[in-house]
Amino acid sequence: MNEIAHFSQERLDPSVRDMVEDLICAYAFALDDEDIDRWPYFFTESGVYVLTTKENHDAGLPIGIIRCIGRGMMSDRVKAFHTANIFEPHSYSHMVSRPLIGRGPRQDSYVARSNFQVIRTMQDGRTELFATGKYLDSMVIEKDAARFQERIVVLDSRQVDILVVMPI
Amino acid sequence: MNEIAHFSQERLDPSVRDMVEDLICAYAFALDDEDIDRWPYFFTESGVYVLTTKENHDAGLPIGIIRCIGRGMMSDRVKAFHTANIFEPHSYSHMVSRPLIGRGPRQDSYVARSNFQVIRTMQDGRTELFATGKYLDSMVIEKDAARFQERIVVLDSRQVDILVVMPI
Amino acid sequence: MNEIAHFSQERLDPSVRDMVEDLICAYAFALDDEDIDRWPYFFTESGVYVLTTKENHDAGLPIGIIRCIGRGMMSDRVKAFHTANIFEPHSYSHMVSRPLIGRGPRQDSYVARSNFQVIRTMQDGRTELFATGKYLDSMVIEKDAARFQERIVVLDSRQVDILVVMPI
Repeated sequence: MNEIAHFSQERLDPSVRDMVEDLICAYAFALDDEDIDRWPYFFTESGVYVLTTKENHDAGLPIGIIRCIGRGMMSDRVKAFHTANIFEPHSYSHMVSRPLIGRGPRQDSYVARSNFQVIRTMQDGRTELFATGKYLDSMVIEKDAARFQERIVVLDSRQVDILVVMPI
Repeated sequence: MNEIAHFSQERLDPSVRDMVEDLICAYAFALDDEDIDRWPYFFTESGVYVLTTKENHDAGLPIGIIRCIGRGMMSDRVKAFHTANIFEPHSYSHMVSRPLIGRGPRQDSYVARSNFQVIRTMQDGRTELFATGKYLDSMVIEKDAARFQERIVVLDSRQVDILVVMPI
Repeated sequence: MNEIAHFSQERLDPSVRDMVEDLICAYAFALDDEDIDRWPYFFTESGVYVLTTKENHDAGLPIGIIRCIGRGMMSDRVKAFHTANIFEPHSYSHMVSRPLIGRGPRQDSYVARSNFQVIRTMQDGRTELFATGKYLDSMVIEKDAARFQERIVVLDSRQVDILVVMPI
């Protein structure tokens, strides 16, 4: 994402930055609040969600761990999540950095990169750094709010077996 | 805090967002810098500070671990903190996410939600993730600066015995 | 840094805040992306980088662990980093808080304080909280972008032997 270094010089309309940052922020809070049914609606109808590792991403391998194309496929994952919910009780807390934001290829489209951490707390109080990495996003403005056209979640670690069900 | 999802659509005056974010930020830095005497002054005269757990909060239980009503009660806690300071030397570092911010019930009142982490570093260098959770805030603008009317600290963990003295 | 408490009351031009925050953000991402050759260019030609500990900083000791004066000295460190790169493979992820920002002593100069964490992930997936602390920055606006005139990295821990090579 060296391009970010270049596109970050341009000043965006402050309301665009607010919309983009609010989207990134609301997405994280929805997952933390176990409001997973809202998850597909942070994306456009044809939006794409990819979960991959830094190792794969840096090697240019397009094969992610998870790839959801469109809200329909995302809703299927949400259903799977509800039925597969056999875990020990726990909660998540996201921490997302300020994003660098630039203009995307189309009118009213934007790209962004941010860092994230997810902390998991088990019911007995144990906490662990569950995942860290970066979000590489493309967004469009739809009806006065931003939505993801594509969100690529790049995990720092390649140990990801446990991540199959819950979106990051 | 599903309401946040709705109120986050509205654009606020950028100077209001700045005042609210500066308040949240300065509060964290004051605690990290052991400048605890300033703590009551981040609240209005009648401000309320509540420390509770996710378990209690989600169950709608208003009983927190700590509840301070008004700056007087907060100043008493500050005094207790100074006299009870018998700990092994350590320092805290807060990390607070961007808040979602919305209008509150009154003119010039605002509500916000953010995530936080507190890292504790012991003098020998050991670090631990001391606390994670979310801040649920109500704020008012007083004399060109924001202050908390209410700050509810919702801890992800229910293991909180150690938290009795220091504000989060 | 009690001064921060005072200078944070003043509202800055939003584009100044954006430039300052983009600088802090791009700096962190460049290090995370192993783009260390760019590191000296986040500073002015005569910029200063200091890495120190909270213990030393609070005691007013100007002696840091590392002190680079000017881009030339920084470029030497970058070269040293490339040749000394004998580590077990790993990656870093910075998380930086919102900064409090104030006016500096000169026209178009600014000061800022933020908190940071650096998470290190080893190739086998182990993660650790590698460093936490605060950034104390002075910046100037040069050709429509902000650069560091001075960046003081204050580590919470005094255990720093491992930090000799990589900038934080």
